[in-house]
Amino acid sequence: MGRPKVAILSTVGIVKAAIEILDREGEDEFTLSRVADRLGVKTSSLYNHIRSKDELVELIREVVVEPIDTEAFRRLPWDEAMLVWARSYRSAFAAHPNSIKLLSTRAIRAPIVLQMYEQEVSSMVGAGWPVEDCVPVINAIENFILGSALDLVAPTVMIDTDGRSDEVPLLTKAVKRDDGKRADGAFEIGLTALIDGFRMRLRSFVDSFDDRS
Amino acid sequence: MGRPKVAILSTVGIVKAAIEILDREGEDEFTLSRVADRLGVKTSSLYNHIRSKDELVELIREVVVEPIDTEAFRRLPWDEAMLVWARSYRSAFAAHPNSIKLLSTRAIRAPIVLQMYEQEVSSMVGAGWPVEDCVPVINAIENFILGSALDLVAPTVMIDTDGRSDEVPLLTKAVKRDDGKRADGAFEIGLTALIDGFRMRLRSFVDSFDDRS
Repeated sequence: MGRPKVAILSTVGIVKAAIEILDREGEDEFTLSRVADRLGVKTSSLYNHIRSKDELVELIREVVVEPIDTEAFRRLPWDEAMLVWARSYRSAFAAHPNSIKLLSTRAIRAPIVLQMYEQEVSSMVGAGWPVEDCVPVINAIENFILGSALDLVAPTVMIDTDGRSDEVPLLTKAVKRDDGKRADGAFEIGLTALIDGFRMRLRSFVDSFDDRS
Repeated sequence: MGRPKVAILSTVGIVKAAIEILDREGEDEFTLSRVADRLGVKTSSLYNHIRSKDELVELIREVVVEPIDTEAFRRLPWDEAMLVWARSYRSAFAAHPNSIKLLSTRAIRAPIVLQMYEQEVSSMVGAGWPVEDCVPVINAIENFILGSALDLVAPTVMIDTDGRSDEVPLLTKAVKRDDGKRADGAFEIGLTALIDGFRMRLRSFVDSFDDRS
């Protein structure tokens, strides 16, 4: 038996085509009719498999976030788990930088992603975090991660003082130290500071709670 | 005298048209031929005013960053200045979210922006920061700011547990506390943690230096 001449339309195939369009052409080109074109079908045929563009976005989200290590929150204290989670999160989005704006500006409904947050909040509350702080803290770390994932596709020399070193002598000295790992260096120094700062916040909360009791 | 029937082409007019295209239609639509179309001129006419798309991007950068308060580094200690600078930086980019990816993934050459960094590095070095830490620290804070600027255009309820509260009970409780200022709350809690973490880093550096001397 040979391969079928007509592509068999499946949800997985639709999601794959949508991610390819996002990766190669960017968010502005990401429409249902472009996805249908790529698969050689009519847009209406997509609706046998997905209900809406919103649903397709959530299916894309599940694929993009799949490599994120949320298991870390089961085996490690919240702060150590946060470091593991953040590094894998950045890599996952760095693989699909054109999806960052799309996924970070639409409400999250994918069950697997909600489970990820449940795990995280549970680990934080277990460590003494007030429940109302959990989502802002996670949200803040995600903002840092997504900004850093975008930075991974930026040039190695991001600040170019060429021909202007007399006007900005200190800056020229500061960027000269660059070793080609600019984006990684900025991510690690920032992630450490952010988690250190959050450890301080948790400690001051726990201390004030101890004082009251 | 009436208004001239033919628009007079100027560098300022070109930059303005380019920013309008970015704001309304997104980065993928931002080409020199679209800018020319909008101004009703031929693409080649643009070259009487700008040398290249790269130069146009740097001119756009100057306009977008104009509201950023770098003066703070002249009147305040580095950490307090960083807070002022970061808040104005986020507002500036939140006004042009479609420019974030474009501007954050191209080398920075605009003189006014280089001067901003010079000011910042000078303030940090004056406070005891090792020169090689300055650019990674600034870079990390910028990643957080740009991720947070993107978050400002995201929905107020970003994590939607509707219909799934049994599966993710803690998360549902955590997002319930949301007061409609989600993005602002995440930005402020994160910015405070980040600067606290960097204060700790500077202190441990200064302490180890004191020990050696």
